[in-house]
Amino acid sequence: MLLLKNVYLNGKTQDVLIENGTFSQIKSHIEQKNCETIDCKDKAILPTFCNTHTHASMMFLRGIGEDLELFDWLENEIWPRENKLTPEMIYHLSRFAVLEMIKTGTTMFLDMYFYADETIKAACEMGVRALVTYVGMDMFDENETQRRLENAKSFLAQKSPSALVQKGLSCHAVYTASQKLICGFKELANRKDAYFHIHTSETQKEVSDCLKKYGKRPIQLIDDWGVLDENTIIAHAVHLDDDEISRVARAKAIVAHNPTSNLKLNSGQMPLQKYLDRGVRVALGTDSVSSNNSLSMISEMKVAALSAKSAANSSTAAKVSDIFKTATQNGFEALGVKAGKIQEGYLADFMLLDLKCHALLPNVNLVSNMVYSADSSVICDVFCNGKPLMQNRVVAGEDEIVQNFKAVCKSLC
Amino acid sequence: MLLLKNVYLNGKTQDVLIENGTFSQIKSHIEQKNCETIDCKDKAILPTFCNTHTHASMMFLRGIGEDLELFDWLENEIWPRENKLTPEMIYHLSRFAVLEMIKTGTTMFLDMYFYADETIKAACEMGVRALVTYVGMDMFDENETQRRLENAKSFLAQKSPSALVQKGLSCHAVYTASQKLICGFKELANRKDAYFHIHTSETQKEVSDCLKKYGKRPIQLIDDWGVLDENTIIAHAVHLDDDEISRVARAKAIVAHNPTSNLKLNSGQMPLQKYLDRGVRVALGTDSVSSNNSLSMISEMKVAALSAKSAANSSTAAKVSDIFKTATQNGFEALGVKAGKIQEGYLADFMLLDLKCHALLPNVNLVSNMVYSADSSVICDVFCNGKPLMQNRVVAGEDEIVQNFKAVCKSLC
Repeated sequence: MLLLKNVYLNGKTQDVLIENGTFSQIKSHIEQKNCETIDCKDKAILPTFCNTHTHASMMFLRGIGEDLELFDWLENEIWPRENKLTPEMIYHLSRFAVLEMIKTGTTMFLDMYFYADETIKAACEMGVRALVTYVGMDMFDENETQRRLENAKSFLAQKSPSALVQKGLSCHAVYTASQKLICGFKELANRKDAYFHIHTSETQKEVSDCLKKYGKRPIQLIDDWGVLDENTIIAHAVHLDDDEISRVARAKAIVAHNPTSNLKLNSGQMPLQKYLDRGVRVALGTDSVSSNNSLSMISEMKVAALSAKSAANSSTAAKVSDIFKTATQNGFEALGVKAGKIQEGYLADFMLLDLKCHALLPNVNLVSNMVYSADSSVICDVFCNGKPLMQNRVVAGEDEIVQNFKAVCKSLC
Repeated sequence: MLLLKNVYLNGKTQDVLIENGTFSQIKSHIEQKNCETIDCKDKAILPTFCNTHTHASMMFLRGIGEDLELFDWLENEIWPRENKLTPEMIYHLSRFAVLEMIKTGTTMFLDMYFYADETIKAACEMGVRALVTYVGMDMFDENETQRRLENAKSFLAQKSPSALVQKGLSCHAVYTASQKLICGFKELANRKDAYFHIHTSETQKEVSDCLKKYGKRPIQLIDDWGVLDENTIIAHAVHLDDDEISRVARAKAIVAHNPTSNLKLNSGQMPLQKYLDRGVRVALGTDSVSSNNSLSMISEMKVAALSAKSAANSSTAAKVSDIFKTATQNGFEALGVKAGKIQEGYLADFMLLDLKCHALLPNVNLVSNMVYSADSSVICDVFCNGKPLMQNRVVAGEDEIVQNFKAVCKSLC
């Protein structure tokens, strides 16, 4: 049991009681004996973030090959380094990524990268929630399809070591994965009640190539293949026509929106407000640091809001409350976790903010301050499932995590 | 004299000697007795930022009237509060704004707001550089024109109390200030060798209204009036045609670029790369917190880069080094101050960064990390003119500044 005394919540000072990882009582005054108590004077409580699309282990690529053409960047900077990766490296890279997430207020992420088991191990050890996926990509080679399907099956067969960490399956995209692979992965995921995740409609080129090859647009295609449902998360989804927006809304599929990456790689601006108006479930993600270059959801919210106003050609689009929801509640809900709200019965994933920080003043609209003016320096403490991950801005073991990360980066240079 | 030992600079560890507010020596090893010395192990040095367009005292409006239509926002939220402002309030609001600037690495700003003398007083006391302007706006009423011209004259007549703080003149815009006022202000500024500053071409509406009224576009108009030269700073400059870009480049006028504000108010995206390619002097600014909502130049750099790539429809546009220059060197140079570079002979405006912070790792491209991944939490120390403004993340007197700010906000609610 944990009692937060006098914490600022929705314009009032409240006491918050946490039992078994859940907010059990929130009222103006709670008396509770034999209970760890935190004095939260001058602190505000907000839900933590859920990052619904990233490739955590790409941390070593931050700042490498900046401002290059896509192919130049991939061929000369990214792929040669990725070829050197080992499982042990992925473990250390994932730990460093999770450190950055915790420091910036994130307690859950959806990951898609090599050696998923290592990322699972890192997430479990560090106490965060995750949906870690095994990635399929066959380049239309049937032997590879078979190999990936078997790997996926055995990946899902083994249980995750922590209840906070789920397993799922990803396919890279319709231009790198065959129908057989995509449909096979979706079926395997369904059998285990697991999520399926895929990059879709990130660029105009992807859409026109898909039209050329299949005579259909990407979302149309995978919907016709039966892949689109409420357990499917489509990353990016920048270039959808009206019919595709309707299909995504109807299927209750989740769009993982990555505005910074989309702008940085010049993929385009996703019309967020239009999607919300049409009833699409949208949740925010950072993508990896190689196209962001940060895992901070605080920075992502600001870019999301600005990009959405621009895409909608309206300053009243993308209201702060909606943007905050895409980064919190919508993300957790999308991944089947009852968190993202400070409310009785919700899981106790939360952060405590220093209300004396300049960036949170005046405290007229805390959510607006988080979306537009704050940065990670306002976050004092981060809790996941009622357990502390960061206290007084310190994460247990962070020096060692940084040392190991540096060593991995050195060996990949 | 101040000696920085073993500081990370341009990929190497260096010693940096500061004398009389200037970098006097930078080499791999400096031996200097009787001199204050700072051990800079695991610290990097970078120039601080120059914020070339803001309205510092608007801090009390942060988070107020979010996501409203412009007129609704101005009439119901902004103006009623601005009408209550007193000189004393402006003093406290300016101090709080400068606190936020220092915490986010800015040591110079260009200000345009009411009661400029109070902002000058605050800037002087807090040890930052500033160009503070008296604002002209006559709504084409000749009595008001006369009054403003006299005020401007007496404002410039009195010397600034600090060599770090310059005085200048602003006009609000061509739709709120008459030709007589604008030309009169520019002439008064010229006589005192001072800068002239004006909002220009912020929105499409401003351009079309100007065409209707004067038969010319705003930049064309003020250039024909003789107002455009290297001592004129035009804020926003979002909507310029080719001829206007040429005029600004030819005149060596400075564009103060405010990408966040332009996106948030849906004014448009300034084509930064095009301006740079055409030889326009561009420097970055945050505008006020009522349309940003932060004075952080770190956040502004990221939005500038993303917005510029989008405006240029190219991922290779807006290279990190160019973006960093708009936030540092270009700004100081624009305002006639030899700072913004860590180089012998330059003024010692600099910050020390904690290289152990996750956001600066891996340290492959420090400038890219500052533009895209860092936030204010990486900044340990900020110096202006060789003097410390923040040490170990603490600004002298910050609690009192925050208390006074809160009191002012309360009385304006």
